[in-house]
Amino acid sequence: MKIAIIGGGSIGLLFTYYLSDAFDVTLYTRTLQQAKVIKKSGIELVCNGETKSRKVHVKTFDQWKSEEAITFVAVKQYHLSTLLHKLKDKAEDDINLVFLQNGMSHLQQLEELRNKNIYVCTVEHGAFKSSANTVVHNGQGQTGLALFQGDMKLPSSLFALQNFPIVFKLDYYEMLIRKLVVNAIINPLTAILKVTNGEIIRNKQYFMAAQQLFIEVSDILELENKEGYFEMICEICLKTSENRSSMLKDMELSQQTEIDSILGYILEEAHRKKIQAPISEMLYLFIKGSER
Amino acid sequence: MKIAIIGGGSIGLLFTYYLSDAFDVTLYTRTLQQAKVIKKSGIELVCNGETKSRKVHVKTFDQWKSEEAITFVAVKQYHLSTLLHKLKDKAEDDINLVFLQNGMSHLQQLEELRNKNIYVCTVEHGAFKSSANTVVHNGQGQTGLALFQGDMKLPSSLFALQNFPIVFKLDYYEMLIRKLVVNAIINPLTAILKVTNGEIIRNKQYFMAAQQLFIEVSDILELENKEGYFEMICEICLKTSENRSSMLKDMELSQQTEIDSILGYILEEAHRKKIQAPISEMLYLFIKGSER
Repeated sequence: MKIAIIGGGSIGLLFTYYLSDAFDVTLYTRTLQQAKVIKKSGIELVCNGETKSRKVHVKTFDQWKSEEAITFVAVKQYHLSTLLHKLKDKAEDDINLVFLQNGMSHLQQLEELRNKNIYVCTVEHGAFKSSANTVVHNGQGQTGLALFQGDMKLPSSLFALQNFPIVFKLDYYEMLIRKLVVNAIINPLTAILKVTNGEIIRNKQYFMAAQQLFIEVSDILELENKEGYFEMICEICLKTSENRSSMLKDMELSQQTEIDSILGYILEEAHRKKIQAPISEMLYLFIKGSER
Repeated sequence: MKIAIIGGGSIGLLFTYYLSDAFDVTLYTRTLQQAKVIKKSGIELVCNGETKSRKVHVKTFDQWKSEEAITFVAVKQYHLSTLLHKLKDKAEDDINLVFLQNGMSHLQQLEELRNKNIYVCTVEHGAFKSSANTVVHNGQGQTGLALFQGDMKLPSSLFALQNFPIVFKLDYYEMLIRKLVVNAIINPLTAILKVTNGEIIRNKQYFMAAQQLFIEVSDILELENKEGYFEMICEICLKTSENRSSMLKDMELSQQTEIDSILGYILEEAHRKKIQAPISEMLYLFIKGSER
């Protein structure tokens, strides 16, 4: 089965590498430069101190023609708008489009992609791109995948990869909201305070700050079983105690963060529901102001 | 005229140096070690790239006997409680006690010092202590002084120092609240965001954050003429554009900050008046959590 992956960032490279185990994968990059490097040297994956390399098909995105049975879209949420325009024009009606973006602010845009089978995901891998063709896979996790609209037409083989588990979820909203709540608490706090995930529960004052922020966010999202959600956040902080969140890394590299798809979405929800969100707004401004 | 200065920090050393121009000053330090260094080598003042040195009288605080006409108290707000106990026991009834602490949370403690002439100040000098007997005076400013309780019994000569202006103010509350509002906005934001004062007005998002925080703080303090206060804050950010606030410096050195006397006071006021203070509370927790 042919699979397309659009986007040569850390997640695009990771999916290209692992899915090539079982499928005929073509990676579509934004730049010709990156396509050339990968064509010549393949993708290098650094995992547990070992470097493995694999040759893959690679083209630039303008060569994408909706030929593959499944297309994974692995660009950042803030690059999605321009891409969706092009996708809409070229995509076949019965195409399977799998979106790997964080947060929930892209869902509204996806609704406009009528007549297609659209899936959304939560990616729980730790990975960063260390060169044009190298991805460091430093956190083993799984990918949740759920149908967002259209029909479920993915083959079961996609959910049977030994080294790269993809788990099918029945309720996309439940799946995404869990990830959103976790990201809305851990990412902004660790990025602003410049601490590892574990500090959020180890430091008494930071823990109180996390509680305050959670109360505001969970009210806006009208979460049921709030305690359960907060326990989940604490558990993740414990399990990933020494990790530096993606937002903290982005801030340290003065890169654009994914704050718009996380707290940005929550602020939109607050606005829509006419709920005050003073803490989320302040943290949003702190992070937007730090982006260059 | 004899003057006592209690506290060998940056402000204590600064006042000892400059007041010695005109008065017979004795500095009272907490540690014998510092007293020995100053007795041997005097106080060194670094100002505009020049280093000047001056011999001064120095004793340890337990030798203070309420002998001087005026005693300046230059310890940090968080060291005041223990000191006030000792002061109360030894101070003469007609003593002049001048307090140099930032913020307003010490006022309640000062009310207990009955039968004394109590004055409070706003110190607008930039200074830091670079060794036990060296103070770097890197921001020329003035000292506001107002009567807090008792009678005004300070000699006019105190307000006539050429190189170290002390300005008498009629309304201590108005004087302190102005400084408090400035500190409540500039100090926490610069300390958390790790930026110079000017960034608060240059960075669009930080400026919006400052506005949000100001709205909350000014409501709690029930300020009249809010616009005037906010203009003053902006003007100070402009004038001290390249400065790093004292709280930012304290955070970078992992030292205790003065957050309790600034946002701590505002949170107490909010609590007393039953007003919500979500932003102040969050920033307070961020800074308390960073103190070691």
